[in-house]
Amino acid sequence: MKLGIVFGGVSYEHEISIVSAIAMKDVINAEFVYIFLDQNRDFYHIPTQIIKSKLFSSGEYKKCEKVSLKKSGFYTQGGFLSKEKLLDMDLVLNIMHGADGEDGVIASLFEFNNISYIGPRREACSVSFNKFLTKGYASSIGVKTIDYKYFTKNDKIEIDEYPVIIKPVRLGSSIGVTIVNNTQELEYALDVAFEFDDAIIVEPFIKGIKEYNLAGCKIAGEFNFSIIEEPQKADFLDFDKKYLDFSRTSKALKADISEELQEEIKKNFKAIYNTLFDGAIIRCDFFVKDNEVYLNEINPVPGSMANYLFSNFDEIIKNLATSLPKTRKITINYEYVNKIQASKGK
Amino acid sequence: MKLGIVFGGVSYEHEISIVSAIAMKDVINAEFVYIFLDQNRDFYHIPTQIIKSKLFSSGEYKKCEKVSLKKSGFYTQGGFLSKEKLLDMDLVLNIMHGADGEDGVIASLFEFNNISYIGPRREACSVSFNKFLTKGYASSIGVKTIDYKYFTKNDKIEIDEYPVIIKPVRLGSSIGVTIVNNTQELEYALDVAFEFDDAIIVEPFIKGIKEYNLAGCKIAGEFNFSIIEEPQKADFLDFDKKYLDFSRTSKALKADISEELQEEIKKNFKAIYNTLFDGAIIRCDFFVKDNEVYLNEINPVPGSMANYLFSNFDEIIKNLATSLPKTRKITINYEYVNKIQASKGK
Repeated sequence: MKLGIVFGGVSYEHEISIVSAIAMKDVINAEFVYIFLDQNRDFYHIPTQIIKSKLFSSGEYKKCEKVSLKKSGFYTQGGFLSKEKLLDMDLVLNIMHGADGEDGVIASLFEFNNISYIGPRREACSVSFNKFLTKGYASSIGVKTIDYKYFTKNDKIEIDEYPVIIKPVRLGSSIGVTIVNNTQELEYALDVAFEFDDAIIVEPFIKGIKEYNLAGCKIAGEFNFSIIEEPQKADFLDFDKKYLDFSRTSKALKADISEELQEEIKKNFKAIYNTLFDGAIIRCDFFVKDNEVYLNEINPVPGSMANYLFSNFDEIIKNLATSLPKTRKITINYEYVNKIQASKGK
Repeated sequence: MKLGIVFGGVSYEHEISIVSAIAMKDVINAEFVYIFLDQNRDFYHIPTQIIKSKLFSSGEYKKCEKVSLKKSGFYTQGGFLSKEKLLDMDLVLNIMHGADGEDGVIASLFEFNNISYIGPRREACSVSFNKFLTKGYASSIGVKTIDYKYFTKNDKIEIDEYPVIIKPVRLGSSIGVTIVNNTQELEYALDVAFEFDDAIIVEPFIKGIKEYNLAGCKIAGEFNFSIIEEPQKADFLDFDKKYLDFSRTSKALKADISEELQEEIKKNFKAIYNTLFDGAIIRCDFFVKDNEVYLNEINPVPGSMANYLFSNFDEIIKNLATSLPKTRKITINYEYVNKIQASKGK
């Protein structure tokens, strides 16, 4: 399999995407075609044998070949004496976290250019990237979430009971997220959150709530699940800790929970994934309180693709590659324009 | 103002987009740069003086200049003796209905390429293009919708009470929509709907329910509303009738309803638009039953931009053009990669 890996992107998670992408070499057995999207939105083809994180931080990647995303794939630039050339790959794995990768931009570019890819489709991105839309989606599929209030920039914000957790609606990886213990801390936390977004959600902060992560995907109509992990963490993972997490390739430990709770978590995952996330390997992070399961967040491009949760990650990728959603063919025949012209006698 | 008009697209509403786009010439006072997206996903620059619907149905548009969407705009193709050239325009009006225009594809392409445009952003597209997501969104902002059931392709479908209306979740303009009066009619209606989509919603069909349409947008934080129209229609508008509607440039009549109901409709519109639809002129179609307002659908690229509902459409476009949402600048400084390299002693 010739697997394109698209990574980088104009996102606060640009760097963790690089780390995730490099980790793929160790967990998938394939011929890789690494495509880096830099902060100027230029694509570069990075030879697999030279890839390392320093290549990007130093700017050296600019010596690699620039490529363009066009119909059916990535093309090298033609020149005076050379013709542009299509890079050979069977499909692409989207491993851009945050903006560009998880917000639907790259999904749209792939769809527009007819590129086959593993990754979340556009609507899946919208309902997972925006925490407010996640709440609405969860509610309409019968999945519980923690109570919340939604505010936009000029709303009057009143908090009934502390502590609360304040989150910009659109960023991943805890960026702009603050736990607020009292009124004195509120203003600064709001300033931080609104610096990143026009809209926020406020949730009660429940100290010590149990968290469980489950990854999976649907292949030929059947769900393929990872183990359920209880992530080790402080109050909440800050960016540094999450960052280190993204380079994980060693296996995780299965959470010690009842069969019943495992089934309940899987039931929630299935409802979330349904058909909207077809084509993607996602990781859902759940809270459990008083034996009830609550969705915390959906990661449609999870850190290092959550490979460490699967015993057969390589196989999952290869099988999913053969089971990607198809785009329906739309035929345009100008029936209506012709009808109107006929009725006008033209 | 030099106004790009992007129209066409790979969509069941390709043809009505052409009609809508041509209508803009009569209702906006600007210098137009018409950009057509054909069914092969090629862009063409169509000179304003020759534009007419027959140009497209006949295939003659292919004689016009092919252009490419790249950073900052549309470029003519360079050749052996000519250099590629950026088409001069101040901003773009997205007037593609249905797929490509209302589903977030073109919004992503514009965002990726840093193009200023009037039209719905990606998340706004997802929650309006997919009727199931519309229901979830409406519910989370406190806007009522008609009761519904959601089914995906392999679900067992049981109907408690007829008549019902069956809708594929993703298509606009009544395509694939059927009113079903009894069990005998059900199977065919489901076949039709599932031909267009993997997911459907089923609603009770309420004959003679009142419908009211309101268009508007937010400019510099203030809402600008059209009149409220009660559209004239049969049980529901079929594609032919809607099609003719899309070329409308004559003014509509204001619905004869109480001030109170008008305010209630506007209140619902504001909750829907909030910040998610910033940058777009949208038309919301509401039902009213027992004096309660229900959202039927959100049209984020309404037919002929709903110009016929405004007394000052030209002014609205020009003011909105100066009040488009800005993209937040994301700076990438490789802080984390550098930190890790330092800790590794490399």
